[in-house]
Amino acid sequence: LALDNRPIGVFDSGLGGLTAVKEMMDLLPNESIVYFGDTGRVPYGTRSKETIIKYAKQDIRFLLKHNIKAIVIACGTVSSVALNEAIKESTVPTMGVVEGAVLGALNATKNKIIGILGTSATIRSEAYEKAIRAVKDDIKTVSNACPLFVPLVENGYFKKDNEIAILAAKEYLKPLIEQNADTIILGCTHYPLLKDVIASVVGQDVTLIDPGKQAAMALKESLKVNNMLSLNKNGEHRFYVSDSTENFSHYANFFLGKNMNSSVEKIDIETY
Amino acid sequence: LALDNRPIGVFDSGLGGLTAVKEMMDLLPNESIVYFGDTGRVPYGTRSKETIIKYAKQDIRFLLKHNIKAIVIACGTVSSVALNEAIKESTVPTMGVVEGAVLGALNATKNKIIGILGTSATIRSEAYEKAIRAVKDDIKTVSNACPLFVPLVENGYFKKDNEIAILAAKEYLKPLIEQNADTIILGCTHYPLLKDVIASVVGQDVTLIDPGKQAAMALKESLKVNNMLSLNKNGEHRFYVSDSTENFSHYANFFLGKNMNSSVEKIDIETY
Repeated sequence: LALDNRPIGVFDSGLGGLTAVKEMMDLLPNESIVYFGDTGRVPYGTRSKETIIKYAKQDIRFLLKHNIKAIVIACGTVSSVALNEAIKESTVPTMGVVEGAVLGALNATKNKIIGILGTSATIRSEAYEKAIRAVKDDIKTVSNACPLFVPLVENGYFKKDNEIAILAAKEYLKPLIEQNADTIILGCTHYPLLKDVIASVVGQDVTLIDPGKQAAMALKESLKVNNMLSLNKNGEHRFYVSDSTENFSHYANFFLGKNMNSSVEKIDIETY
Repeated sequence: LALDNRPIGVFDSGLGGLTAVKEMMDLLPNESIVYFGDTGRVPYGTRSKETIIKYAKQDIRFLLKHNIKAIVIACGTVSSVALNEAIKESTVPTMGVVEGAVLGALNATKNKIIGILGTSATIRSEAYEKAIRAVKDDIKTVSNACPLFVPLVENGYFKKDNEIAILAAKEYLKPLIEQNADTIILGCTHYPLLKDVIASVVGQDVTLIDPGKQAAMALKESLKVNNMLSLNKNGEHRFYVSDSTENFSHYANFFLGKNMNSSVEKIDIETY
């Protein structure tokens, strides 16, 4: 029996990845987590592939300094455009959010039409489409890039009745509604914050797939199968960011859906 | 007579500063320009003061490698929150965009009510208000942060009839309209791209002050007074960015208002 109390490393371009941490805390309360949010360089999804790869490698090198047992890439953009490079850089098991979200969507769809939302880089990569085709070949997909969604979320424009968020959602969701998608992958960990806004535009009959939730489920399964679950009574949670920690708690509470008491520290990611 | 053919260094968080370069090209066609746009880390205006200072120092150290005679900080955020630190880092005359914009606004206002738009960091700094008070003490100011304007511009949402841009502008301009400002400082070099959108919301009677234009005028005056104008027949223009150069020309043509034929090169700003 090789149980493993080492923490799990999680990183994201900013604080959106905390929606994945929230699901991990719920599903895996015994696990310790080391989170890095690259708040000094967010967003990733409007940058080039080469820059995203460079940033992802630095993020992984930082997490590897913390004696972690696995890495969850909570960033839809990195998971889509730099997964192979990230896995090569890592020395521990490393998973992204694409595969879990795709399995969730394939389970949910009835009419076999799946919509995909993501950052510009994610949509350009066609990572979700490729992952769907690798499992099933009779699925129709329709995707759209949502470059304003991350700035909207990072600046607090995600409440149900926010008019700018609703207008942006209407524009981005138009082709998915026209193509009659019955399941939509929210292909970026920021997007679950816009769930109410998106649901109000597409209606309650469309299933929204939260990549963070799917990743937490896949992680739990993987840790169990590999006898790597933690024996801690309660996991410890440490948070690191690359910009000031000043407003961290304010936003973190939003993303985590609860008050968090853990410490947060600023680090210089450019030196990793 | 000490005329000076060395280029002028200009930097911005991204490509918005090219609106200032456009005005410099028009007013000072003999001057050579070295431009750096930090496209790998844009935006600056939603980050903390300490991070903005760190990035600004790196930008200046990069420009100083190019045998420049002066630096124009075409970034409203750096000009507002890090001007003193930037000047300390620089070894050549260095100017921001705040002072010129304030003088332009003071000349334009009739009812002595000046509105100020800027990034979150700019508005928090109250740099424009302080610069106004340093010149005149009977001016009423009203300011508002516009955190979505830079993402809107950088993603191409700035055309006159763009509904999302109009809705955001209506929200951000509301207090300025309510307070009856007759002059509005567009306190960020990205914002002149939204001039048509902003004008459609506030009406044609309100004067919009373009900080890039004012900076170009102030620069010309300063070079003339100090006998530092260039004797070149035509200035040479070199452009550097920190993310991929791939879409540079596409956006640069928008910001410069003409096709540009100059070369562009990617550099690693984190090493400066």
